[in-house]
Amino acid sequence: MGEFELIRRYFARPSRRAALGTGDDCALLAPAPGMQLAVSSDMLVEGRHFLSTVDPARLGHKALAVNLSDLAACGAAPLAFTLALALPRADAAFLEPFSRGLLALADAHGCELVGGDTTQGPLNICITVFGEVPAGQALLRSGARAGDDIWVSGTLGDARLALEVFRGQLSVPADVFDAARARMEAPTPRVALGVALRGIATSAIDISDGLLGDLGHVLRASGVGAGIETPLAEALMAAPYQGARRLEFILAGGDDYELAFTAPPGRREAVAQAAALAGTAATRIGSVHAGSGIRLMDGDGTVLDARYASFDHFA
Amino acid sequence: MGEFELIRRYFARPSRRAALGTGDDCALLAPAPGMQLAVSSDMLVEGRHFLSTVDPARLGHKALAVNLSDLAACGAAPLAFTLALALPRADAAFLEPFSRGLLALADAHGCELVGGDTTQGPLNICITVFGEVPAGQALLRSGARAGDDIWVSGTLGDARLALEVFRGQLSVPADVFDAARARMEAPTPRVALGVALRGIATSAIDISDGLLGDLGHVLRASGVGAGIETPLAEALMAAPYQGARRLEFILAGGDDYELAFTAPPGRREAVAQAAALAGTAATRIGSVHAGSGIRLMDGDGTVLDARYASFDHFA
Repeated sequence: MGEFELIRRYFARPSRRAALGTGDDCALLAPAPGMQLAVSSDMLVEGRHFLSTVDPARLGHKALAVNLSDLAACGAAPLAFTLALALPRADAAFLEPFSRGLLALADAHGCELVGGDTTQGPLNICITVFGEVPAGQALLRSGARAGDDIWVSGTLGDARLALEVFRGQLSVPADVFDAARARMEAPTPRVALGVALRGIATSAIDISDGLLGDLGHVLRASGVGAGIETPLAEALMAAPYQGARRLEFILAGGDDYELAFTAPPGRREAVAQAAALAGTAATRIGSVHAGSGIRLMDGDGTVLDARYASFDHFA
Repeated sequence: MGEFELIRRYFARPSRRAALGTGDDCALLAPAPGMQLAVSSDMLVEGRHFLSTVDPARLGHKALAVNLSDLAACGAAPLAFTLALALPRADAAFLEPFSRGLLALADAHGCELVGGDTTQGPLNICITVFGEVPAGQALLRSGARAGDDIWVSGTLGDARLALEVFRGQLSVPADVFDAARARMEAPTPRVALGVALRGIATSAIDISDGLLGDLGHVLRASGVGAGIETPLAEALMAAPYQGARRLEFILAGGDDYELAFTAPPGRREAVAQAAALAGTAATRIGSVHAGSGIRLMDGDGTVLDARYASFDHFA
């Protein structure tokens, strides 16, 4: 199977949202009047972002999900994406489920594959995603203000729990592992929540490297600090795991693809409505303060001395 | 050096053309009113698209050049790009020259780095480029018409000559090799020519897989055939190589990043003016006919039976 046959068989589809889709030197996109185009690229590498044992359908899902998660963090609605794929060989046993998982998630979000590249090489998946957001309404990292609440969508720490089990660092019952593994291999991008938070959230980021690390990006960009109430955070894990590393996984696990966002205390009802509309839980875990850094506090406000390193791709 | 320090040190720059550049979950772009956004992704893999011995500055140049070449083939003016980079390790001896070569070409085209991703993994460079073209004026593959001239910019076959020398398949004098090697490692994207051909060319494509193969895409998309006059094509090679494989390299060499385009015979003067404006040679090598396929003809119109396979990334 050659490159062009591979594209035709697994990835070519009729163009719907693009002015010109796959098959020319470029795709042509035209955002609607008054809209800005939100753009993000994420690259997935075997052994770093996924294990060789993963179901290719879940891998296809995840490759797009992590990119849609970046759109969600900006409050942008998905429009289109390009896929660049390096493969050791053109293997139908991989490509059929991979493209199926990828395109199923794309269809669920009306996000059209408009171009890309395929080549022979070590397995590498690079997606660039395009979304639309009304000019001036994107959720940025720089908008958090002292006094804002800090919120987190969904659940945290499950992907890291699964990873530690895969690594042989931890042993848990099968039902705990299955719940965690599904979160690791097939994360749900919080696209509807991001769009619903336009005009409500003052800042947002998606949690790919761990809550504390990613929240730190928001705080630095906004010139503020934060306090996290650890008993609130403790409620965030989906897998029924109560082991010693629970809080570490929640605060610094990584690979969660939930949203961390800030909003004024006067907008708690609006946040709750946005979360309900999006069908996603939103949990308040602390608040923004003047200053810098993150303090972890016990239930009675006692500051904890815990240190949790966030995931760094070259650490 | 961690991921964020790597980005800050080698790739972060002030935002100029984007509404929001590097440092948030997404970049924000807003094409000017009446403009469409042209988008293309190309991935470069070691051993497939470049050799491990290449100067990293030339590799940085080439990684963007092959993407700008896709914009050129659509007649789009460069606007911005994202870079996703997998590296075995964060190595300053690679990153400093790589980023210098990359950003020098970006600056020369006013093309702003607006986002991306860096990760640990086998060396892989994935760039997605964004350009602007007035709505309806993009040069497409589907516009060639019977009677049109077929043109080629610049020179062809040099990159393949250099590759064959690297592979030990061929031996040539040092000056021949140096000229060919520069074309292979640091191709010039024909951006100004692509923009100048708006409204003149009826179709265009960039020659990455070899003239016959890429021209074949245009012919199929346009529902026409073509005749190539091999004596005209013979004039296209830059390196002073007169060996037996000369015509093969020119017709099917690959990695050229020149434009093949069609235009009506009545626009020959306009093509010449566009080429002069862009500072690029344009050579007429044949014409479009009704039917399908490509016939190679000798100087007196005799049809040659030559077969030249084009480059396929999975062949």
